[in-house]
Amino acid sequence: MRIKVATHSGFCFGVKRAINIVDSALKNSRYKENIYSLGPIIHNPQVVNSLSKKGIYVIGDIDAIEKGTLIISSHGAPQKIIRKIRRKKMKLIDATCPFVKYAHDIIKRLKGEGYKIVVVGDKDHPEVKALLSTVGNVDLHRRDLKSKKVAIISQTTQNRDNYIKGILDILKTDFNEVRIFNTICNDTTKRQTLTSELLKECDVMVVVGGKNSANTKRLHQICKESKVTSYHIERESELKDRFFSGKKCAGVVSGASTPDDTVKKVVERIKELTKKSNERGVF
Amino acid sequence: MRIKVATHSGFCFGVKRAINIVDSALKNSRYKENIYSLGPIIHNPQVVNSLSKKGIYVIGDIDAIEKGTLIISSHGAPQKIIRKIRRKKMKLIDATCPFVKYAHDIIKRLKGEGYKIVVVGDKDHPEVKALLSTVGNVDLHRRDLKSKKVAIISQTTQNRDNYIKGILDILKTDFNEVRIFNTICNDTTKRQTLTSELLKECDVMVVVGGKNSANTKRLHQICKESKVTSYHIERESELKDRFFSGKKCAGVVSGASTPDDTVKKVVERIKELTKKSNERGVF
Repeated sequence: MRIKVATHSGFCFGVKRAINIVDSALKNSRYKENIYSLGPIIHNPQVVNSLSKKGIYVIGDIDAIEKGTLIISSHGAPQKIIRKIRRKKMKLIDATCPFVKYAHDIIKRLKGEGYKIVVVGDKDHPEVKALLSTVGNVDLHRRDLKSKKVAIISQTTQNRDNYIKGILDILKTDFNEVRIFNTICNDTTKRQTLTSELLKECDVMVVVGGKNSANTKRLHQICKESKVTSYHIERESELKDRFFSGKKCAGVVSGASTPDDTVKKVVERIKELTKKSNERGVF
Repeated sequence: MRIKVATHSGFCFGVKRAINIVDSALKNSRYKENIYSLGPIIHNPQVVNSLSKKGIYVIGDIDAIEKGTLIISSHGAPQKIIRKIRRKKMKLIDATCPFVKYAHDIIKRLKGEGYKIVVVGDKDHPEVKALLSTVGNVDLHRRDLKSKKVAIISQTTQNRDNYIKGILDILKTDFNEVRIFNTICNDTTKRQTLTSELLKECDVMVVVGGKNSANTKRLHQICKESKVTSYHIERESELKDRFFSGKKCAGVVSGASTPDDTVKKVVERIKELTKKSNERGVF
């Protein structure tokens, strides 16, 4: 059986940067007290587990801590969290992805110019929550969209088709001006395009990445919308013989927070599984 | 047979204003020399004929005249025409519709801010020709749309669905920012909405307005996309008995450059025709 791995995989720029920032902090004596992250730094449980062993504690509530250092994850953080940390006089390390920061900058600028801001994305995702906190209005009912001047931005890992659907909703309203910013990062577009291309060549797809990773789930969604069988796994141990039974070509794609090493292990495991099956004459 | 006339008909604001400007000019001794218009002042042959009898001469080429006054029609005029008139030291009367002017103002402002400007409309219509002359780039091939900052405006009498189709073409390109202005005038939207509503109640539609009027043709297009039989006429003499044979309800809609009086005459003629047929027992 052939195995085709997407030519673009492993950590994206923003995730790589966040991990580097965390590594530097762990070596820096300035941060000798406890280091916390509010929710996982990246959406990959294996990486987050390994970081917690090195001394990065994931907390669920900012009120649980009073001193030490808070790392803002690659997804950014709501303004009120940042204000609270400053009030507590704790140290702050900002690992927000620069592409997410760019979206925050657009919101701040356009708000000042009197635009109603609309964010298209998963409303429960930490990136979107943080963006909406910069907007300062999380109560986006349809009636609120009836503004004369609207600016629209997207979650950086959004699918372009979903974004266009959201834009069309606004274009149906009685607007004077709609200003659309393409805040979907290149990495997201690239992985989605490569997934669509592999779907044309393969008859089984393996999507590797955190089950809590929105961008990985979106790659799996693209697979599910095709006729090709697909599986979303976090690591090689989840692979089964039967995934590849009777298949000719397996495509492997990965989310932005999946380490290169995990992708390699998945590919090796597929080789082992399909070799064994071949020897047993299952195929 | 019932006759239902759209609750909004007759001249639109811009056409009414242009006709008033022409009337005032005809009474003003300042314009005692010949008054010309480059193409018809409004897209209604009957009105333009009656104006030519009063002394407004329609010309096809600006180089044909050397002195006198040029009236810029409600659709506006290309910059180079205005420059030529100034060079010839002729008088200029500007009857451009303020909504069209607003679109020109947007183009001038956004061009200065580095946006690539896209106009969605009928490329041979005088309004669009004039808007493109303000853009200063009439060679809008698809590759040209691949700009990072794009501003989109619409012909003022465009159909909203067509406009959205044009916008979607741009949203598929690799843009950073797209800025959309709703330059479709309210009058256009109102007439199109009323046409769609009458199509639900009537089994024959009469669209009244210039055969050269883009906005009237668009009302007829909306009718043609339904299952209801429809006719585009300029005046009552074009109505035939057979249009209403076996029909229960006739809808009457009119374009922005159709005089109220013409609509009234059409309604009277439909009454006469259907009364006669009733007497003959045809229905």
